[in-house]
Amino acid sequence: MALRNLRRLQQLNIAYFKQYSSVSKLVSLTVDDKTGVSVLSLQRPPVNSLNLELLSDIHNALTEAEKNKSRGVILTSQKDGVFSAGLDIMEMYKPDQDRIKTFWTTLQDCWIKLYGCLYPTVAVINGHSPAGGCLLAMSCEYRIMQTNYTIGLNETLLGIVAPPWFISTMKNLIGHRESELALTQGKLFTSDEALKIGLVDEIMHSKDEGIKKANAFMAKFAKISPITRSLTKQSVRGPTIQDMIKNRQADLEHFLQFTNNPQVQQSLGMYLEMLKKKGGK
Amino acid sequence: MALRNLRRLQQLNIAYFKQYSSVSKLVSLTVDDKTGVSVLSLQRPPVNSLNLELLSDIHNALTEAEKNKSRGVILTSQKDGVFSAGLDIMEMYKPDQDRIKTFWTTLQDCWIKLYGCLYPTVAVINGHSPAGGCLLAMSCEYRIMQTNYTIGLNETLLGIVAPPWFISTMKNLIGHRESELALTQGKLFTSDEALKIGLVDEIMHSKDEGIKKANAFMAKFAKISPITRSLTKQSVRGPTIQDMIKNRQADLEHFLQFTNNPQVQQSLGMYLEMLKKKGGK
Amino acid sequence: MALRNLRRLQQLNIAYFKQYSSVSKLVSLTVDDKTGVSVLSLQRPPVNSLNLELLSDIHNALTEAEKNKSRGVILTSQKDGVFSAGLDIMEMYKPDQDRIKTFWTTLQDCWIKLYGCLYPTVAVINGHSPAGGCLLAMSCEYRIMQTNYTIGLNETLLGIVAPPWFISTMKNLIGHRESELALTQGKLFTSDEALKIGLVDEIMHSKDEGIKKANAFMAKFAKISPITRSLTKQSVRGPTIQDMIKNRQADLEHFLQFTNNPQVQQSLGMYLEMLKKKGGK
Repeated sequence: MALRNLRRLQQLNIAYFKQYSSVSKLVSLTVDDKTGVSVLSLQRPPVNSLNLELLSDIHNALTEAEKNKSRGVILTSQKDGVFSAGLDIMEMYKPDQDRIKTFWTTLQDCWIKLYGCLYPTVAVINGHSPAGGCLLAMSCEYRIMQTNYTIGLNETLLGIVAPPWFISTMKNLIGHRESELALTQGKLFTSDEALKIGLVDEIMHSKDEGIKKANAFMAKFAKISPITRSLTKQSVRGPTIQDMIKNRQADLEHFLQFTNNPQVQQSLGMYLEMLKKKGGK
Repeated sequence: MALRNLRRLQQLNIAYFKQYSSVSKLVSLTVDDKTGVSVLSLQRPPVNSLNLELLSDIHNALTEAEKNKSRGVILTSQKDGVFSAGLDIMEMYKPDQDRIKTFWTTLQDCWIKLYGCLYPTVAVINGHSPAGGCLLAMSCEYRIMQTNYTIGLNETLLGIVAPPWFISTMKNLIGHRESELALTQGKLFTSDEALKIGLVDEIMHSKDEGIKKANAFMAKFAKISPITRSLTKQSVRGPTIQDMIKNRQADLEHFLQFTNNPQVQQSLGMYLEMLKKKGGK
Repeated sequence: MALRNLRRLQQLNIAYFKQYSSVSKLVSLTVDDKTGVSVLSLQRPPVNSLNLELLSDIHNALTEAEKNKSRGVILTSQKDGVFSAGLDIMEMYKPDQDRIKTFWTTLQDCWIKLYGCLYPTVAVINGHSPAGGCLLAMSCEYRIMQTNYTIGLNETLLGIVAPPWFISTMKNLIGHRESELALTQGKLFTSDEALKIGLVDEIMHSKDEGIKKANAFMAKFAKISPITRSLTKQSVRGPTIQDMIKNRQADLEHFLQFTNNPQVQQSLGMYLEMLKKKGGK
């Protein structure tokens, strides 16, 4: 039965990737003909919650940017205010068991792709960026963040334990000490706080300014062989990625065990009820 | 014979833990009914040297704090002036072979417990904190240190090589570079120097002020599920602890080989003679 | 055949080490009788390119300093202007297959020796220090750099991927984040920039001033047992060295595959042609 499930999962996987093999309405990918740099915009209103379809689309857009030989990719939100609110809780609440497996493996694939992708990547963070949104931003090579928003792996605050590869991504960026403090508190940093500890690299006052700064970062690689650059990046980030790949099955099982826990389901239900009352999604 | 020794060691272990299964006169554990936070005070005059009994008592008090559901533990010295002078040299000088094994495994157990314990921990360092004292402080999650005292892993200065897990604990806190500089020099940092490199987090001018600051740190977890928090902490610190556990037998043997070296015994003898002449313990 | 090649390589290795078993004209090793500290000067004009002979000589001089019981070694360039230009490209261009193997294993040996050597080491960087020159400097325990020169692992800029142990050496010094930024850009830092991120520890305005500062660093170990110090250093740096030793055969094969690639040979040819036209070596 395990084998049959696996096959069904694979078929499902293939189906999803076929379905979203071209860039879809949940993201847009626009190449700047002058610079050769692509802008990948998240556009799943209202808050770019990362559901299966959005994650697939990000994955496919990152692949598309390889194929169209983009010189780099700028990841941003189509709409100011929220970069991404993180994983879509609807994927975890009373989930279909096949879909939730595909959801998590797609998140894993998306991170592997983004964290290891060949071209330079910059996050232009034009809004709040908690949890999974922070993971996406941290997985880029450079971060420019708009003032008056917050960023952080605040999973703890939501009763969720950030997976080990979320933690490794943060440790690589801000070190062991700051990661422990941030993660145990589920801390959301203001842009200034984030700048101070190196969670972001620059501050912007508008998305336009951010895109300009992102292009200035990309320009630093103008005289560098893209192949050499990407092999060097893989050599720096490789151990973290290999470690995740080695443990990805256990990571999936851990996630399924967590979400299928009745108490967790009850908490998610109450949380969603509260969101509804607030008038949000 | 090895087996017989092992059994004897285990019996000894059990005996010690029974003997100190309740919190003893070498430490006190006081719960603040208003905050739910416990204060664990070291009170082995004159300098809180870490002998087998004190280490057992710390271990037991940390377990007791789990049982009484403390919201956190503040580790401090009952008397201003010395937080802890580190390992008691008397445990290493002409040692009984059974006792010295229990001594070292109890130190290992104590670190495993403190470094991985479920509730938040803060060291209120109201005096000097060299060697093993520094290890205890570094193993907490947050450090507040009184001005005009010193802290550091100064083992090198005493002719001792800090064990790998002392080194890992320091690397996790202040990084590889600063750890190498500190360890090769056996450097003792003033509180201001320690603050600058992140070896401590805050400065205090009195123990009362330190306790207040420690409680302010604890309060940051007020809205966080203790289970989620502790699993997150374990995920961050887990690899370091697992690495130590994997190597603890080799670590014990290494320590025994070192202390049973005749030259080391001679040095310890001269050192103790010098201390006696000085009028200290 | 593989075995025959290995034997030939070993014989060649032995021959080389015999040939340079005493300190040669490519380096000088001078012990200061007052301080007991040796100065190891690189003197292969014009730019101390690291060819097989220079690397062997450095290796032998480091061994010689052990034998003559130097209290420490200061690594510097005999002539101001260039500390070392890095690996000699002539070793990689149309190479003899036996020699290039010996070249790379000698570089590996030289790093293992320098990174793990028992006495304290200081680089007095009295000139530019790119690529392999930066590796040598980073492998010392302390770095003092003259103003108006540059330092960095700029391999990427030259179309070369820095080997994993170059990257580990840098990560240990300046952390994961700064290393990634520096390596993907092939960045050369001014002395002030290098000071800011911790790639060097102090600035000097002349070699004399640098030697004085280096001796001041050495003096910090005056009261420390050399054996304890060296065991502590090995405990801090050991994991990085062991990791390299475990992978050194794969590292050699990777280097040979890279240099024997026809496109790489063509690039090296064009680069050397350009250097000739410039009038440099």
